[in-house]
Amino acid sequence: MSSPGELRELVESYLDDLALTPELGGLEEPMRHALAGGGKRVRPVVCLATAEAAGAGAEDALPAAAALELVHTFSLVHDDLPALDNDELRRGRPSTWAGFGEAVAILAGDALLAEALRLALSYPSPAVARELVQATLGMIGGQYLDITEAPVDLASLHRLKTGCLFSASVACALWVAEVPERGQAPWRAFADEVGLLFQIVDDILDEDGYLLERGAEGARALADEAAERAQARLTELPGDTSVLASIVSGLAARTS
Amino acid sequence: MSSPGELRELVESYLDDLALTPELGGLEEPMRHALAGGGKRVRPVVCLATAEAAGAGAEDALPAAAALELVHTFSLVHDDLPALDNDELRRGRPSTWAGFGEAVAILAGDALLAEALRLALSYPSPAVARELVQATLGMIGGQYLDITEAPVDLASLHRLKTGCLFSASVACALWVAEVPERGQAPWRAFADEVGLLFQIVDDILDEDGYLLERGAEGARALADEAAERAQARLTELPGDTSVLASIVSGLAARTS
Repeated sequence: MSSPGELRELVESYLDDLALTPELGGLEEPMRHALAGGGKRVRPVVCLATAEAAGAGAEDALPAAAALELVHTFSLVHDDLPALDNDELRRGRPSTWAGFGEAVAILAGDALLAEALRLALSYPSPAVARELVQATLGMIGGQYLDITEAPVDLASLHRLKTGCLFSASVACALWVAEVPERGQAPWRAFADEVGLLFQIVDDILDEDGYLLERGAEGARALADEAAERAQARLTELPGDTSVLASIVSGLAARTS
Repeated sequence: MSSPGELRELVESYLDDLALTPELGGLEEPMRHALAGGGKRVRPVVCLATAEAAGAGAEDALPAAAALELVHTFSLVHDDLPALDNDELRRGRPSTWAGFGEAVAILAGDALLAEALRLALSYPSPAVARELVQATLGMIGGQYLDITEAPVDLASLHRLKTGCLFSASVACALWVAEVPERGQAPWRAFADEVGLLFQIVDDILDEDGYLLERGAEGARALADEAAERAQARLTELPGDTSVLASIVSGLAARTS
């Protein structure tokens, strides 16, 4: 079993070495700018840790893990655009549109999504790609809910915006590890709790969403409950889930 | 064998009845607006006609054909955006951003691409989806070349911008018809000529590209030569290619 830090190193190194489709030409630079933003790589690390817990090698899950990070990055590149969140900065660096212009950022986002699917399609079975595309569709639906500002409960919004891709981070690893569909339900239940935990803590750190709805103490209690449920789910799973347990603790305690 | 008109009817009716992913919610309206623009459905019709020529049923190729049209539509929705071509009209109707706003158009384009992949992934084998995603990556690379206005020869630009998706229109049908890879080369050579023919005629009608480079007579001669080569390729193929021949004649003679 690899530690979360080792898994993150694997992801960074795979992303650094990832050969993009040559026909993308000069789009490679804005795509690499977006990918190299120093993100926490939570989704790919969860994917690799799940793969190891389910009996596969982390290496085998790397294309799926990278695909998840590319989909996440695609969503950030498009969300940052002036027509959406209008963010000029992303983790202290110029967002892709601020650095390369809006037109290039739109195309770079499109290309990140397409490259993600290309990676997911590198497996013999279409299961990983199917999981990823369904999660992407849910995430886009969540983005739409967010910009329309229609009345919607936070749980539904977050399930789409964040939860779908977290669930896919676990589910893609299950397909790589060839866990049969009938055995996937308890893993997916774990994934749902992790996605919720991540989002609540995000809201606490951003002073947004659950923090506004529940206050600081209420949101913290919600996060702790989600972390407890995630840990409880882990005890029901076959395999060595100690690294996943440590990831959950890290997500509950994170301060950035 | 179905006529091109019958195949187009099949495509229209399939697109009309296509159930979009429920999580997309209100994005369905701008997506359907973009899809219902009265396009010629050239790519899906070529896909269905190829499927029939290669011995499959047109019905079997409908998900692939629709996926091609969704990718094409995604590219139009993003190309029309103010940061790219800034087109307020598309075939006499408001473009998606002009009708629904930029933010919604960006997300609707993203969702069209993801839905296209979902359709392509409805086949048991990942081959159709792989073909589609490679073509999409080439097309995005072509778009990038187009907006950077870097010096590039027209043939390379068009091979990416238009050719990739035309080749995929034929190739996806070959996978549906289970034509083995070693037998696909002559079909793909045909597809390349059809893509070139389509683009030259587009340039003649738009007074752009090849028309500017070669003049009216020169561009017409190029189109006729591409049509002749496409017809010659058809005679080398197994199966009844009469409908594809009629599509080529139609593409060479089209006036809109």
